[in-house]
Amino acid sequence: MTPEESIALIKANLAEVLNPEIIDNVILNEKRPLKVYWGTATTGRPHCGYFVPMVKLAELLAAGCHVKVLLADIHAYLDNMKAPLDLVEQRCNYYEYIIKSLLRAVGVDIAKLEFVKGSSYQLDKEYTMDRFKLEGITRISVAQKAGAEVVKQTDDPALGGLIYPLMQALDEQYLDVDAQIGGVDQRKIFTFALENLPRIGYKARAHLMNTMVPGLGQAAKMSSSEPDSKIDLLDAPEVVAKKLKKAHCAQKVVEGNGVVAFVEHVIFRVMSLKSGGKPKFVVKRERDGLEPLVYEDIETLKADFEKDVLTPQLLKAALTEALNELLAPIQAEYQASEDWQRINELAYPPEKKPVNPKKEKKAKGGDPEKRAAAEAARAAKLAQKNAPESASHGVETLKIDSESKPEQI
Amino acid sequence: MTPEESIALIKANLAEVLNPEIIDNVILNEKRPLKVYWGTATTGRPHCGYFVPMVKLAELLAAGCHVKVLLADIHAYLDNMKAPLDLVEQRCNYYEYIIKSLLRAVGVDIAKLEFVKGSSYQLDKEYTMDRFKLEGITRISVAQKAGAEVVKQTDDPALGGLIYPLMQALDEQYLDVDAQIGGVDQRKIFTFALENLPRIGYKARAHLMNTMVPGLGQAAKMSSSEPDSKIDLLDAPEVVAKKLKKAHCAQKVVEGNGVVAFVEHVIFRVMSLKSGGKPKFVVKRERDGLEPLVYEDIETLKADFEKDVLTPQLLKAALTEALNELLAPIQAEYQASEDWQRINELAYPPEKKPVNPKKEKKAKGGDPEKRAAAEAARAAKLAQKNAPESASHGVETLKIDSESKPEQI
Repeated sequence: MTPEESIALIKANLAEVLNPEIIDNVILNEKRPLKVYWGTATTGRPHCGYFVPMVKLAELLAAGCHVKVLLADIHAYLDNMKAPLDLVEQRCNYYEYIIKSLLRAVGVDIAKLEFVKGSSYQLDKEYTMDRFKLEGITRISVAQKAGAEVVKQTDDPALGGLIYPLMQALDEQYLDVDAQIGGVDQRKIFTFALENLPRIGYKARAHLMNTMVPGLGQAAKMSSSEPDSKIDLLDAPEVVAKKLKKAHCAQKVVEGNGVVAFVEHVIFRVMSLKSGGKPKFVVKRERDGLEPLVYEDIETLKADFEKDVLTPQLLKAALTEALNELLAPIQAEYQASEDWQRINELAYPPEKKPVNPKKEKKAKGGDPEKRAAAEAARAAKLAQKNAPESASHGVETLKIDSESKPEQI
Repeated sequence: MTPEESIALIKANLAEVLNPEIIDNVILNEKRPLKVYWGTATTGRPHCGYFVPMVKLAELLAAGCHVKVLLADIHAYLDNMKAPLDLVEQRCNYYEYIIKSLLRAVGVDIAKLEFVKGSSYQLDKEYTMDRFKLEGITRISVAQKAGAEVVKQTDDPALGGLIYPLMQALDEQYLDVDAQIGGVDQRKIFTFALENLPRIGYKARAHLMNTMVPGLGQAAKMSSSEPDSKIDLLDAPEVVAKKLKKAHCAQKVVEGNGVVAFVEHVIFRVMSLKSGGKPKFVVKRERDGLEPLVYEDIETLKADFEKDVLTPQLLKAALTEALNELLAPIQAEYQASEDWQRINELAYPPEKKPVNPKKEKKAKGGDPEKRAAAEAARAAKLAQKNAPESASHGVETLKIDSESKPEQI
């Protein structure tokens, strides 16, 4: 890849880039890999919505970037102090396993992928002193505005929410990066960092913003009492099929359609990465006795969907196949790793609720699909239980978890 | 001193005590010295207003308490980040010198007096984690209310002001004390600490509150352009006399009278400590050919003042003598210590303004009173310059510095 191609891929598929000249300068003049940070609070189980930021990380890795994933364990701990610290640490391990596996599944080299825990530097004296400085020069109203789209807004939020934007700015300095990436909902946090790091003597960074992508939820307004909706990365193929069947996918409507969006932002981009820019998405129509539809670009697919040549049913079936193909190597790695399986149990221990033994037995004895569905329900319930109440990092993903805005990933 | 006498002296002369049973328990049941903390931001030069909290510290020492003075250097640094950190450290040294000297002048044993710099633990991992926890559970509105009377209120205050009350709570734990003492204006911060330390697993402490004492200012509404008003602890006797002559002291009015208040809260209490509870305040009336007025209690003095038997002029003259007597040993210690003199120069370096050499020469060559006044003006100007913009600690004193509320010490 030429430097120009690398720059183009770094800036591709984004809603916005702030200070792109920083990126150009690093690659063209300093001639070194761009260092980019992406943060995520290690709370609930990452599900398929995680593919959206992951595909961008994959593009960055493919473009030769040094990608640093901040596992924001202190944030995760503070979000729900009922969870002990060692549970949060196990979740860090789980996140590291799943993110690595996911990126490998997308087909990129993860040699320049690095994981850093927040607790490894956010409690240090120097960082704390800088936090004091930023707190001393930041007006309350400015901190509130910076976090307005990301920190959960209640009538009377906790002080912690005001501090997260300041930390996210400091993290750029302490992770020693050239750029930060996050959802476009983090724009105000990013401009806060741009404006305020220089006020305490540090340089401003570039900021890359992912588009907000509609989720794979069942309906526009989904209640958290519907545990089936999220597709766990370890869900069996038949569970994926079942959940996708229920996914909201309005006929002929592309705008706000989570299934179309997933095909566009995950499947097409993964295929593009894997094939060197030549995606090919096949929609089988054997049951209707027709030739398959083959798409090499998303625009043609969208046009067919709007004309109902490509129906929601057909698209869902094709996505099910593509997604299961993407999940297969992840699940194979999980099955092959006793350590990962152990960590999964420790990070997301089963709920200790009194179980009705009859019901349990019936489910186990029943047909495999029912059993799988029951297991999926249990897993999804767990994910619900572990969903964060607020988070400053990786929120383009986390919003799926909390489902407060199910129309966005 | 019996335990009961000790308890009585600890609780004496205060506006309010929260959880007094903690004090009783330590002294009567645990039979050990009560550990008390008082905090001060090391900003401007401590002046005579400092005597008010110091007399209470003296009473605590006399009652056998272990008194810990927190030198809040991080706060001082953050208040005005233009001052480099090493200047703040020199001010810590200056504060330690002057506080020790002041307490010795009051006649108490300072063996159980300890100084702790905020920076020695407020940047530690454990403290920072606890600060994260408190920030995570404290509503913004609660933090704002806690600091309302102490943190400088502007239309849009900085985030730092919200965090100070949380730190002042944590300091109780990390300084390992049984009680905190401060002005009654810190009541909301104290109740915040009471309510919130237990929420993160620490015990609630007792809180002692000094009365707000009117200052020795020149007028009820004093502008900061009047540099003469504050009496520096190193002011020469004739400067003290001159400043006190200008002090506002309404005839026959006891309420809100700074001169009467100083006699009550400093002179009488110091005399009481020195004499084992038998104060004796002498007002000479030689110029009027009358016998001196001798007061053994403040109530009789106040009654005479209200009847104008004791005029402002007479009271000021008597206070001048008493105050100079109190300052004499402090100034003698200062003159005897080259180290302290050096620190004074480093902590409060002279302003580097272009000086009119003629004027300077004239002042130096002129009569001693004029020279002293010029020096005092310079010192006061320095103190003004160094006055804190906001501070969470020792504010019953610091308010004199900032003179935003000159009617209160």
